[in-house]
Amino acid sequence: MQRTSLALARRAIRSTRTTPAPILSTRHSTQIRFASALPPRSSAFAQLTESNITDLRALLSAPTSLMSTLDGSASEDDLRPFNDDWMNKYHGKGQVVVKPKTVEEVSKVMKYCWDKGIAVVPQGGNTGLVGGSTPIHDELILNLSNLNSIRSFDTVSGTLTVDAGAILETVDNELASHGHIFPLDLGAKGSCQIGGNVATNAGGLRLLRYGSLHGSVLGLEVVLPDGTIWDGLGGGLRKDNTGFDMKQLFIGSEGTIGIITGITILTPKRPSAMNVAVFSLPSYEAVQKVYTETKSHLGEILSAFEFFDKQAYDLVRRHQKEGGEADRKVFETEGEFYVLVETGGSKQEHDEEKLQGLLENLMENDLILDGVLAQDTTQYHSLWKLRELIPESAGKSGSVYKYDLSVPVPKMYSLVEKMRARLSESGLFKEEGGGRIREIVGYGHIGDGNLHINICADKYDAEIEKVIEPYVYEIVAAERGSISAEHGLGVMKAPYIGYSKDQTSIDLMRRVKQMFDPKGILNPYKFIL
Amino acid sequence: MQRTSLALARRAIRSTRTTPAPILSTRHSTQIRFASALPPRSSAFAQLTESNITDLRALLSAPTSLMSTLDGSASEDDLRPFNDDWMNKYHGKGQVVVKPKTVEEVSKVMKYCWDKGIAVVPQGGNTGLVGGSTPIHDELILNLSNLNSIRSFDTVSGTLTVDAGAILETVDNELASHGHIFPLDLGAKGSCQIGGNVATNAGGLRLLRYGSLHGSVLGLEVVLPDGTIWDGLGGGLRKDNTGFDMKQLFIGSEGTIGIITGITILTPKRPSAMNVAVFSLPSYEAVQKVYTETKSHLGEILSAFEFFDKQAYDLVRRHQKEGGEADRKVFETEGEFYVLVETGGSKQEHDEEKLQGLLENLMENDLILDGVLAQDTTQYHSLWKLRELIPESAGKSGSVYKYDLSVPVPKMYSLVEKMRARLSESGLFKEEGGGRIREIVGYGHIGDGNLHINICADKYDAEIEKVIEPYVYEIVAAERGSISAEHGLGVMKAPYIGYSKDQTSIDLMRRVKQMFDPKGILNPYKFIL
Repeated sequence: MQRTSLALARRAIRSTRTTPAPILSTRHSTQIRFASALPPRSSAFAQLTESNITDLRALLSAPTSLMSTLDGSASEDDLRPFNDDWMNKYHGKGQVVVKPKTVEEVSKVMKYCWDKGIAVVPQGGNTGLVGGSTPIHDELILNLSNLNSIRSFDTVSGTLTVDAGAILETVDNELASHGHIFPLDLGAKGSCQIGGNVATNAGGLRLLRYGSLHGSVLGLEVVLPDGTIWDGLGGGLRKDNTGFDMKQLFIGSEGTIGIITGITILTPKRPSAMNVAVFSLPSYEAVQKVYTETKSHLGEILSAFEFFDKQAYDLVRRHQKEGGEADRKVFETEGEFYVLVETGGSKQEHDEEKLQGLLENLMENDLILDGVLAQDTTQYHSLWKLRELIPESAGKSGSVYKYDLSVPVPKMYSLVEKMRARLSESGLFKEEGGGRIREIVGYGHIGDGNLHINICADKYDAEIEKVIEPYVYEIVAAERGSISAEHGLGVMKAPYIGYSKDQTSIDLMRRVKQMFDPKGILNPYKFIL
Repeated sequence: MQRTSLALARRAIRSTRTTPAPILSTRHSTQIRFASALPPRSSAFAQLTESNITDLRALLSAPTSLMSTLDGSASEDDLRPFNDDWMNKYHGKGQVVVKPKTVEEVSKVMKYCWDKGIAVVPQGGNTGLVGGSTPIHDELILNLSNLNSIRSFDTVSGTLTVDAGAILETVDNELASHGHIFPLDLGAKGSCQIGGNVATNAGGLRLLRYGSLHGSVLGLEVVLPDGTIWDGLGGGLRKDNTGFDMKQLFIGSEGTIGIITGITILTPKRPSAMNVAVFSLPSYEAVQKVYTETKSHLGEILSAFEFFDKQAYDLVRRHQKEGGEADRKVFETEGEFYVLVETGGSKQEHDEEKLQGLLENLMENDLILDGVLAQDTTQYHSLWKLRELIPESAGKSGSVYKYDLSVPVPKMYSLVEKMRARLSESGLFKEEGGGRIREIVGYGHIGDGNLHINICADKYDAEIEKVIEPYVYEIVAAERGSISAEHGLGVMKAPYIGYSKDQTSIDLMRRVKQMFDPKGILNPYKFIL
């Protein structure tokens, strides 16, 4: 039996840091529309006219808060960033973007739209992956970017109240200066807005540690479809059992029953000690065993447990090299799989000792092939990049079909294998390269049972889509999984909800939508149809 | 500056263990009814007849699953434990108790009641404190005790699926054998049922660590008012963003829109190291400072931070002595306030070191007068008893008016002081004793901003109640607090919801109730009126 101390196992990771290309550059200029697959425009909604624009302008304090092709204040190109989704897969035809500066303005705009029967799509950072935050047809785009202040922060309780349009990373940086952390972190943090995070019940990288937003959001302020402002912020109380917990319905409602304008959330103390290690492993079997050992050794300090496959790792390394990064080896022995383990604790010596105990155990039991532990902040970020750059690297490699699935951990990776087998059989994917599908990579959050499959194709194409869907949903349903672990339904998965929810559930949801928005003006054509 | 090591500060606590009297014995034999304050019986509901009993019996597999005074299968005395609430303050006149053994039986009974317009009160362990789980008039009592199996437990993910009627302590003991812990703990654990815990969104002693049930409950199975079984268990997935998160509405709905029959919940690893310390302190100011220091020193291992005042401590010690326990001193120097700090971690040495750091800091800064740290399991339980016996000791001291309030931590204790001042002025309370009010004690969960005030009177009495209410709610509303942090509304607080919620919120809640239960048969006269 070979015993290895952490000191031995540690070695300085050569700087794998890259200057990441702006994420927006991963958008493609080719515009593919599968208009046939989208629901037709409903005649129930009013067609916007120049006169509406005049009325709407009168409700807003600043002329720049409204841009429209109808009154010539904006060109189609100006509106494109609001009409095109993050993946450049969905392309709305909205003619008006309204960016209110206050909750009262949101309320006035909604009341106007309610009265006139104008359909509205609420929009945050527009970083969603299921076409939920862009118009399907000509819905008015109500963008929350101008509502972006931190309203208050209580350092004793850690309670934060913030406008919906505040950027996640900006807020987290502000919290860091008070020794606190936002209980959510995800790849798009530099662009996504907290209102959108809550509206889509974002999960992200540290759900394992800080739990879901259903637990950490303490209150919401919401503008209802008819313009009523509902103050459900609740004074920042951690406990309040006075009636139905109405705010919960808005968490994950994807902008279909109200527009979240303010959020009160409980932020934990920021761990003073953070460590990250990445291991290479021989098999998915080993990934699961390492997870069990990690939980047992690290207990309360474990803050993330991510995995990715060899294909994802190779893709990121290739992307980094193409970005000009020196081609240095990260691992002596590469593996079929990789896991990233992060700890966040309050005492560095204690956390290192626990990590050392884990590492010794993993090496003694031959569960890992190699491991790298970050020695400083630069290396901490470098190691995280191996995981965080996967979506961007996939985007660089083509048009990406993204699936975001929940299944029991032991079954997770078999879905990637099934997908590879199916696409190989169809001739679309060739291991040796040259197929219309270039890459199929699997990664995700083991601790949450959440798998991401990215399928990189030359371009979006109805034939490819037909081979993938609904097959991918069928294999998830066979495991009683979820067809959307965290991305939501949007327009992309709305027709497929039946793979995850039974008719009773769908009926209940329709009644909720009907109760809040009987005219159906809020984010139509999506979510619950 | 005096430096004190933990070793010095430790001293064996003399066994303060008592044999607690059965909690049910705190019920009083005098039956006080404030019938005038309760809503009148609604004529919309059917009067149960013997023929209904015959029909209902036919739906149940066992003759013992139905007890009724209408067919002579039970006496009024037999039904009393189901009609009287935990505090013996509310006294229903239910003539039938149904205890289904399966979800299908619950469904059949509900469908029958729906069709016939029979009002139903769902009942778990009947340990609620706001009269929510007993009939107000002659509602059929649907008791979940016979639905009490653990359905499944997955040791890797910690996902538990359990029947609603399972007793919290029984389930936690079962989890302990697998190295897991139920993410909720409260005084009534030996009697309360998990379905009731979820239906009332119970908070309890470790919310600080494990968060609210809105975060840890993964799925619910619910029988809707018309008998439909809604399977929202969701296969135990930790993440699932496919539509509105309907289960959230049932958490804290107090049995008014559906009967929870099954629960899937995420259970954390049970900490392998548990420590508890109790400190005596000079002031409420010190309590707050100790809280800040404790969070900073103990970080992720802090699992409970409870406080109680001198009056509560004295009451418990008196109760323990009356119970035959030897009169040994717990603290060299007693204080105006006490705090209980619990840690739960994965490595005893690390946790002790962190605790030692805390203790040194508290002593150096003269924040505590004295401290006792448990040396073994017996002492661990003894120290917890100082906090956990407060409600029972109060019950022994008379008829208790219980208030359960959320306010910002700095304002918490001032509510107790205001209450004492008001009751002194009224002449009902005399510091030297002899008033109709014997004790006014304050305690609660500092970490959650949750204060409990117990006012022990000779007996329940409309005059006393008028001095307390709505004054207590007014002073809470003035701080934008919650009139019910964790106990819920039930019948006791239903009329006072306006002190915590605005009209828009109440209107939304009424629409939810209407949507699920248009006939209003489920737990009428309570919650949202």
